[in-house]
Amino acid sequence: MKIALAQINTRIGDFQENLNSILSSVERAKSDAADLIVFPELIVCGYPPLDFLEFEDFIDRCNEAILKVAEACHGIAAIVGAPDKNPKSEGKNLFNAAFFLADGKIKQVVHKTLLPTYDIFDEYRYFEPNHGVFECVSYNGVKIALTICEDLWDIEEDKMYTHWPMEQLIKQKPDVMINIAASPFSEGHTQSRKTVLHKAASDFNLPLFYVNHVGAQTELIFDGGSMVLNAKGDVVCELDYFKEDYRVFELDWVKTAKAVPFDTSLLFDGSSSSMKHIHSALILGIRDYFRKLNFKQAILGLSGGIDSAVVFALAAEALGRENVLGVLMPSPYSSDHSISDALELARNLGAPTKTIPINDAFSSLLESLNPHFEGKEAGVTEENIQARIRGLMLMALSNKWGYILLNTSNKSEAAVGYGTLYGDMCGGISVIGDLYKTKVFELANYLNRDKIIIPQNIITKPPSAELRPNQKDSDSLPEYDILDEILQQYIELRIAPSDIKAKGFDPKLVDRVLKLVNTNEYKRYQTPPVLRVSSKAFGLGRRMPIVAKYLS
Amino acid sequence: MKIALAQINTRIGDFQENLNSILSSVERAKSDAADLIVFPELIVCGYPPLDFLEFEDFIDRCNEAILKVAEACHGIAAIVGAPDKNPKSEGKNLFNAAFFLADGKIKQVVHKTLLPTYDIFDEYRYFEPNHGVFECVSYNGVKIALTICEDLWDIEEDKMYTHWPMEQLIKQKPDVMINIAASPFSEGHTQSRKTVLHKAASDFNLPLFYVNHVGAQTELIFDGGSMVLNAKGDVVCELDYFKEDYRVFELDWVKTAKAVPFDTSLLFDGSSSSMKHIHSALILGIRDYFRKLNFKQAILGLSGGIDSAVVFALAAEALGRENVLGVLMPSPYSSDHSISDALELARNLGAPTKTIPINDAFSSLLESLNPHFEGKEAGVTEENIQARIRGLMLMALSNKWGYILLNTSNKSEAAVGYGTLYGDMCGGISVIGDLYKTKVFELANYLNRDKIIIPQNIITKPPSAELRPNQKDSDSLPEYDILDEILQQYIELRIAPSDIKAKGFDPKLVDRVLKLVNTNEYKRYQTPPVLRVSSKAFGLGRRMPIVAKYLS
Repeated sequence: MKIALAQINTRIGDFQENLNSILSSVERAKSDAADLIVFPELIVCGYPPLDFLEFEDFIDRCNEAILKVAEACHGIAAIVGAPDKNPKSEGKNLFNAAFFLADGKIKQVVHKTLLPTYDIFDEYRYFEPNHGVFECVSYNGVKIALTICEDLWDIEEDKMYTHWPMEQLIKQKPDVMINIAASPFSEGHTQSRKTVLHKAASDFNLPLFYVNHVGAQTELIFDGGSMVLNAKGDVVCELDYFKEDYRVFELDWVKTAKAVPFDTSLLFDGSSSSMKHIHSALILGIRDYFRKLNFKQAILGLSGGIDSAVVFALAAEALGRENVLGVLMPSPYSSDHSISDALELARNLGAPTKTIPINDAFSSLLESLNPHFEGKEAGVTEENIQARIRGLMLMALSNKWGYILLNTSNKSEAAVGYGTLYGDMCGGISVIGDLYKTKVFELANYLNRDKIIIPQNIITKPPSAELRPNQKDSDSLPEYDILDEILQQYIELRIAPSDIKAKGFDPKLVDRVLKLVNTNEYKRYQTPPVLRVSSKAFGLGRRMPIVAKYLS
Repeated sequence: MKIALAQINTRIGDFQENLNSILSSVERAKSDAADLIVFPELIVCGYPPLDFLEFEDFIDRCNEAILKVAEACHGIAAIVGAPDKNPKSEGKNLFNAAFFLADGKIKQVVHKTLLPTYDIFDEYRYFEPNHGVFECVSYNGVKIALTICEDLWDIEEDKMYTHWPMEQLIKQKPDVMINIAASPFSEGHTQSRKTVLHKAASDFNLPLFYVNHVGAQTELIFDGGSMVLNAKGDVVCELDYFKEDYRVFELDWVKTAKAVPFDTSLLFDGSSSSMKHIHSALILGIRDYFRKLNFKQAILGLSGGIDSAVVFALAAEALGRENVLGVLMPSPYSSDHSISDALELARNLGAPTKTIPINDAFSSLLESLNPHFEGKEAGVTEENIQARIRGLMLMALSNKWGYILLNTSNKSEAAVGYGTLYGDMCGGISVIGDLYKTKVFELANYLNRDKIIIPQNIITKPPSAELRPNQKDSDSLPEYDILDEILQQYIELRIAPSDIKAKGFDPKLVDRVLKLVNTNEYKRYQTPPVLRVSSKAFGLGRRMPIVAKYLS
């Protein structure tokens, strides 16, 4: 039996284009004489469709798409992910389903059992779990244990579920496992995914075909990396990462195929190989955000600092250097090097810049406001005004010329609220908002791996917001290597304050940092979606109360 | 048996204060010779704790609080809601539990079975459902069927679950039902809650004690309204709405008590009685937002229009008129009446105002930007600049003096994106963002019920953003009565576009409006939390993709 895997990039709710992409893959598989083609989870509508799933009309259109794919399935079968209506009045209205299509019809429907409802996943919000119908799909004499993403996933030590579909399916003595997935990228996740799939294949002693989404959907970046494993759990083929891909496999070949050489670049070891993947993820994240919104051009503020430099370089790579405009908006407190560094960066990239000083606007606003500031010293308010004038100017250019503004905040400053709401926290999408400052430096070095793009001075000079004379980040924040470690303990690892202190961090500093994290929830609530590259990004996957007292 | 209900207002994560409030209620119940005191769901940590539940330290502190309440339980028993650790390695790590405390100890723990995971609820994100341990609590010879919120709720036609705790508990022949809840306010919900509780009591032929949270937690407003029903399902006593309350009941009295006169003001009929509750909800929402964040003073922009007028009046009532500053920021396009109307409103309220013209700042910014606008006509960009200057000025005053900025957007404009991000969409909390424009007018009339607070001219003049000469909302939007109807069909009722058209709305208009709703998701993503008063508010309870194609 020949099995094709179609790792395609869809757009949420774009039924016509998604269907076209599915149908052309089916045609291709037919011409390759494949017996079966496999598409990812919920591919007809894109993933995650979120509350569109609550619109009956949306579900009807999913169903129409499935019927159209079925019509094309003559001489070939297809496995396609889509929502399926629950015919019973009890339970949620939908199932997350894998449709088995052949002979122009829906032959069998498999419902997902384990519904991820954590971090960025909300599947139990929409779907009823499969309660007990476990049946392999038989086709052309091959018995397939067909599961959907999480159904094959929960085999780790701290089990999140209490029963597993494969325990039922294996009793029917299947010949092969197929898993259709929507598993987004995060640092190190590629490796854990392989570990899980290896364990499934070797535990059940079955070859495994795994097909994943590719492409970015707002903040989520699906990295593809569909793969085929033999019954020993060796990966015998991997599809591309961060790109659409399509491959055909002869099942008998898979059974005897040898492991492909282990790609160490996929290891999570904090080395540049990990940075390589973060880089690819962010490029895809930017590119798909613009492409899927039908925009071409980006704008961003260039401070001469490391954050905007890295975002400028990434955007130029993702969108074309001619499509990214860097805007310098010097104030009375801008240093000479902040301007020269930014201009040197733009020259290195070959990307356009504009310079619009904010001095006059700043003076004019202060003149209007000063009578109402009477009796108060200049301070953070005046710093924020500068940042907000810049935000206003960038948004004005964005409105006038149809650019999307890129946000340049990093995760460290977003965490502690070291940024101005409606100022430097503006933007359509946050590019590096899931990278701690120390990682931003790593990424800058990675971008310079072949030749200098980010000027060395931008990497080596002490970070500063330049909102008052001689300001440095370290005036109000701890050094980033310490700050980032504390933040990671609290945000990614959710370690108790007392345990963080027990690791040797200054207790007062820990208290101060965690209080900042908690009391700045209101700022993060109003910031753009963040391209997710870690296991716990701000946004969809981290939901905290704004009004609360804990640790604050 | 004497049963006390403690309807208290807690703050999320404020373990010390929450515990103090619980313990003082226990003392009061002791002095009232109550046998049992009942507190709401998850009361020790506040509701909804969201991802704080993923911090082990947070759970430990919940547990410490429970033990301290248990210690106080001598000569009295208490039912207290708190998370409970799941001792098994399989399944989620926590249960949503009701602790039965007596004799200084935890006597019994009941786990919630039905975990609401829809709209604003995410309980399956955190909790494992009770899989089959159903045991009544026996105390002083009384057998109690103890359930948690949703456990008693799902008895409507379209059942969201597949099994129900009461079906098990009733077999044990309980004498009384107790339900502890965290059920937030929305228009009409008070009545549906009564309907559900009436059905439960009469179906099972048991008296029912129901205790709910009161108080606002960021966007969610818990309205209290705990109640006691006899076995016929008559409400024999209601606790206060929108206030803390405490009452003691003799169980034997409840069994024979007659229904209290039906409070028609709780009906959802679009009349001012419904507006009365929305008004109370918004006052509590504002008050608790400030109080629980330890802020006293609010600021807002006064345009002379209906939205800012209503928010000004609500804030003056909630926080005290001296604590709310209205700021007039006239531009070249501001009409005379916009200033005089706003000042008349402030006089009616007795609240302070400031006037800061934006002309100079507007000219200065245009001067800096105009060279970069070459070849383009003036238009929306220039309108947005005015709105953003106002946002900047309000934030500057807020930063300088410690005010929280109130957002004044209404639901109609938030829905179609008729507002400027980082301009009039700024603020810490959106006060009327869950009220369509037509409802804002109703609320204005309600506020004027005893005497004129909102000047009549503000209510009768045609709405305008006044960002260009002679602008009116109706230049770019349909009339609000039509717009709001279309929006409600789509947002609250999730009706398919074709079905909305079939109701007689202009098909082109429907397409245009729904496209605006979907393509403006990016704006709503970055706006403040919205005080929720409808069944489907923007924010936590409505999750839509930003990058998508459906209907756009």
